[in-house]
Amino acid sequence: MAVTPQAVSSEAWSRRRVEELAERCRRWGQWGADDQLGALNFIDPAAVARAAALVQDGRVISCALPLDGNGPQNGSYGRTNPIHHMVQDGGDILFGAQDHLPGLRYTDDTIAMPLQCATHWDAFSHIFYDGHMYNGYGLHEVSSSGARRCGVEQTSASLTGRGVLLDIARHRGVDSLAPGEAIDGAELADCAQRQGVAVGRGDILLVRTGFLGASRARGWGDYAGGDAPGLSLDSAEFVFEREVAAVATDTWGVEVRPNQTAELFQPLHLVLLVNAGVMLGEMFDLDRLADDCAQDGRYEFLLAAAPLPFTGAVGAPMNPIAVK
Amino acid sequence: MAVTPQAVSSEAWSRRRVEELAERCRRWGQWGADDQLGALNFIDPAAVARAAALVQDGRVISCALPLDGNGPQNGSYGRTNPIHHMVQDGGDILFGAQDHLPGLRYTDDTIAMPLQCATHWDAFSHIFYDGHMYNGYGLHEVSSSGARRCGVEQTSASLTGRGVLLDIARHRGVDSLAPGEAIDGAELADCAQRQGVAVGRGDILLVRTGFLGASRARGWGDYAGGDAPGLSLDSAEFVFEREVAAVATDTWGVEVRPNQTAELFQPLHLVLLVNAGVMLGEMFDLDRLADDCAQDGRYEFLLAAAPLPFTGAVGAPMNPIAVK
Amino acid sequence: MAVTPQAVSSEAWSRRRVEELAERCRRWGQWGADDQLGALNFIDPAAVARAAALVQDGRVISCALPLDGNGPQNGSYGRTNPIHHMVQDGGDILFGAQDHLPGLRYTDDTIAMPLQCATHWDAFSHIFYDGHMYNGYGLHEVSSSGARRCGVEQTSASLTGRGVLLDIARHRGVDSLAPGEAIDGAELADCAQRQGVAVGRGDILLVRTGFLGASRARGWGDYAGGDAPGLSLDSAEFVFEREVAAVATDTWGVEVRPNQTAELFQPLHLVLLVNAGVMLGEMFDLDRLADDCAQDGRYEFLLAAAPLPFTGAVGAPMNPIAVK
Amino acid sequence: MAVTPQAVSSEAWSRRRVEELAERCRRWGQWGADDQLGALNFIDPAAVARAAALVQDGRVISCALPLDGNGPQNGSYGRTNPIHHMVQDGGDILFGAQDHLPGLRYTDDTIAMPLQCATHWDAFSHIFYDGHMYNGYGLHEVSSSGARRCGVEQTSASLTGRGVLLDIARHRGVDSLAPGEAIDGAELADCAQRQGVAVGRGDILLVRTGFLGASRARGWGDYAGGDAPGLSLDSAEFVFEREVAAVATDTWGVEVRPNQTAELFQPLHLVLLVNAGVMLGEMFDLDRLADDCAQDGRYEFLLAAAPLPFTGAVGAPMNPIAVK
Repeated sequence: MAVTPQAVSSEAWSRRRVEELAERCRRWGQWGADDQLGALNFIDPAAVARAAALVQDGRVISCALPLDGNGPQNGSYGRTNPIHHMVQDGGDILFGAQDHLPGLRYTDDTIAMPLQCATHWDAFSHIFYDGHMYNGYGLHEVSSSGARRCGVEQTSASLTGRGVLLDIARHRGVDSLAPGEAIDGAELADCAQRQGVAVGRGDILLVRTGFLGASRARGWGDYAGGDAPGLSLDSAEFVFEREVAAVATDTWGVEVRPNQTAELFQPLHLVLLVNAGVMLGEMFDLDRLADDCAQDGRYEFLLAAAPLPFTGAVGAPMNPIAVK
Repeated sequence: MAVTPQAVSSEAWSRRRVEELAERCRRWGQWGADDQLGALNFIDPAAVARAAALVQDGRVISCALPLDGNGPQNGSYGRTNPIHHMVQDGGDILFGAQDHLPGLRYTDDTIAMPLQCATHWDAFSHIFYDGHMYNGYGLHEVSSSGARRCGVEQTSASLTGRGVLLDIARHRGVDSLAPGEAIDGAELADCAQRQGVAVGRGDILLVRTGFLGASRARGWGDYAGGDAPGLSLDSAEFVFEREVAAVATDTWGVEVRPNQTAELFQPLHLVLLVNAGVMLGEMFDLDRLADDCAQDGRYEFLLAAAPLPFTGAVGAPMNPIAVK
Repeated sequence: MAVTPQAVSSEAWSRRRVEELAERCRRWGQWGADDQLGALNFIDPAAVARAAALVQDGRVISCALPLDGNGPQNGSYGRTNPIHHMVQDGGDILFGAQDHLPGLRYTDDTIAMPLQCATHWDAFSHIFYDGHMYNGYGLHEVSSSGARRCGVEQTSASLTGRGVLLDIARHRGVDSLAPGEAIDGAELADCAQRQGVAVGRGDILLVRTGFLGASRARGWGDYAGGDAPGLSLDSAEFVFEREVAAVATDTWGVEVRPNQTAELFQPLHLVLLVNAGVMLGEMFDLDRLADDCAQDGRYEFLLAAAPLPFTGAVGAPMNPIAVK
Repeated sequence: MAVTPQAVSSEAWSRRRVEELAERCRRWGQWGADDQLGALNFIDPAAVARAAALVQDGRVISCALPLDGNGPQNGSYGRTNPIHHMVQDGGDILFGAQDHLPGLRYTDDTIAMPLQCATHWDAFSHIFYDGHMYNGYGLHEVSSSGARRCGVEQTSASLTGRGVLLDIARHRGVDSLAPGEAIDGAELADCAQRQGVAVGRGDILLVRTGFLGASRARGWGDYAGGDAPGLSLDSAEFVFEREVAAVATDTWGVEVRPNQTAELFQPLHLVLLVNAGVMLGEMFDLDRLADDCAQDGRYEFLLAAAPLPFTGAVGAPMNPIAVK
């Protein structure tokens, strides 16, 4: 059954309407003035235990992009792909650099990278509006020394729980949504129903547009930083009302681009990340997972996606592991 | 009940004896000439499913060190702690650096770090003996462009399975083993029995010496690269015979230091990593996990410890998550 | 008077002919088996003193490209533009990060860059042919720890002497030579004669094609790593016979590209750098200097162009200062 | 003739007295509200021409520390020594990494370093007092994107002129002054007179304490960031009245440490760099130059010390070349 594709987003959102939406979804103070976890508070041990109980066959699927020089970055926003250097390698061993060591020989290496250059979580300290991040913390909390509030390390023992994949590309019967195509809450609900899965409290919601795979096949182009399909502002209440813990997509910025209003840059970040305290995951490679879900018809799984605990970082890479 | 501490390792191991041990534990070719996973092959889906079934309460415990400038590195082997730089921060926002963007403001950051500077897995490509790494691959496989064989990215959908903690420090009734104190297979077996847990095929074995916590409390000193407690060569057959998939400790190099023989640098790496194909995890922070296990008496759990998939890297950081 | 432009290089150079040329220009052993300076030995104190005596008016002209993110690099050969990070900045001061210090406040910063990403010298250790660099040193001299022979630090008190500019673009009456246009020894001699300047022993020869300025105006494109105008193999004997100490151009690779023969990559590097021991300077910004020389008719000057002494580096940036 | 060493600095300087001194030496606006060169304006072409005329024998002496892992940095103020990585090396060539290229083989490398980790100039944007740097520019001029005012690139065609060495260690008859020993204006004048050299308008003044060489011989210790001999506040008027263009020493911070008053961190930076517009050079290796000057009795020379033009950097390395 074919699904009518959404029109390219055209609805008029004013700054004022976005601010009203953000206000409705605001959770500042809900877990105290010192809270740094936001909707991750919804992932309680019981939710984790239920997520683990979803595991049936024991298949392990990684949703991480490889971290190397062939990644999607193109210099947009100053971001490069990871730069990997060897400190000791096979040639050094051959040339005798370690001949002072008896017997064993080793190699060693280093990495330099923007923390958000590949599959990653945005920390709450990544986005500000009117001088405030999630829970009202101010600009002075993020200096050259990093974030003193809502650094990504705060979430290092979280982001593990029930994952739900909504495969919008399959739902629409396309390989990939096109840049500018928006996904609203009604479509998320339709897709979930059709897939036979419910989205609820504490879930980590993965939304697949197909755009990562399609862009990779084309050589990335402006995948990172350019126009993209994605969630529309009309999806915010779906996420908010269901008390979803975190949302991730296979695009660079979760939300549809161009932005739905010229009056606000990345308005959905304002609603979800800054106000609702919902962490956003970007550049998740969902293709293998989607194939697996299509095959067994099960779109829920245990997801282990805790970030690397870089102290004071405003985002961090991880290797999101789905276990089915 | 007090347990007699092991004497500081003093037994004479010759290079020849170590080589014989390595030969007995050699698995080259066991999974084909092209294998890059070694003992990780023991973690099959059934094993993962059994591991997930261990989850009862849903508690999530991270075994990762924070990644920041206060880490254990001191320049030994050229390794530094992670260097974190902000690309955009609160001051930039205040000074108007993003005033060309409507409404939203962002922060951004980068990292530079040795891949093995904190909690990490050694990939098989990290260690060579007589010109060969695991499965016989040669020196030419690791060049300035990284490892073409056994790069850590090969394991990106593995290292998730049943974790077993053997808390040797508690077993001995000490806060921390001292540098030079060795743990042999008999002690691992005793500890497992006393803890009421079995170690078997496909397990990821975590061995706690207490040395990480004790060193951190003292300001690290030469924790990274210096003398340390750890597994002795006499533990190798315990690991090999039980078909353990991977072994990690709370020390910088898994094995006891000083080395048990002056004729070989890091001889246990030679036996386990190079020959038996057993990946080694280092600088796991096991204190919280150990406290939890002591409290509920359960030393087995689901462990999600897949590394970040740096292509061609000879080691990689991750955030090992235990779920109980 | 118009000068007939050179045709795009088309003459057939075989590998064998290039090797014969290289052999004729070989200076290995001329200054001993341990020499690491090559033709820089021609710059003796008397030559430096004569160079200083050229200074008349005291004008100081820098030939360095700015080192920043707007530089010519595009990822070719893995080279990026410099990446500059602030460690402390004005925002940190404002937010009180240094309030533990009485009174004074500071800023601080770091750089990460390929050593040859902008105006730089190639060290002799940068190029090998048949397993040897200048003076016959072997591959094992350059490992992950850098160059043990002919590292750029060997030249840290050299590369200061008489500079001579040959402005080929002005000589041809064009803004810029085009990619593929070659400059041979006869043209260098003609240009020198017309400019009224002699090229001789110990000189640092600067050759201007205009291509840097033209490329910058166009947004760089493939300036770094692409086709370019430059010196032809037919210029090698001009340089060799006159005992020139070093040669620099305003292109990324000194020599004309595409290479004059498909049988050898960068054949002039083989002749001059590897065999004749002539250091090559690349991406010198010669436009200001050329304007000044055209104005006063004096194409000789004191040039202070010692590289930053990065130990074991195979190239290094510097700020070449011409004093007239 | 022995010279009585200065006592360790003990005179009482209050914050107020330092501010009064700074006020007397303030040059803000002297070269216009847009000036970014300060006392470098004193180095006019005539001064450069006179400096070049000092060259007699043509000896070239570098005053730069080698840039490598054996440098003086110890982590103080977050500064490390340079980190050098090879991108291509001899082993790669041997292993065939470049076999797609006909004939020639290359090596390549990168560097990561704090810009002030070795021999360098402080730019005016490096130091603020009461929210202002030299010429009154505000905090907002230095953001994560670097300095928009008084970045070191502004001085890329300057800092070349007459250098004068005052060898205080030889003047006192010691190998090295000790930490805390201060050098005042009277001693600078005495030393100059005894050396037979005058210090005047536009000079770049180099002051040698011997502390760099002595510290290097001891393994550096806290040379970078610790107590040190150096210029006292009582030297400021010597520098100011003679219209010296820039001052450099062989210590990490030019001025004597501990600071002469507990009420101000680095008070001489406040007077000279912020108010008088005198750039400060640090960690100059003056030992070879001093030996040469002692031998020929000539303490003046041409000095070419233009910094690498890192755009927006608050300091930069260079290779200061003295030509005698």
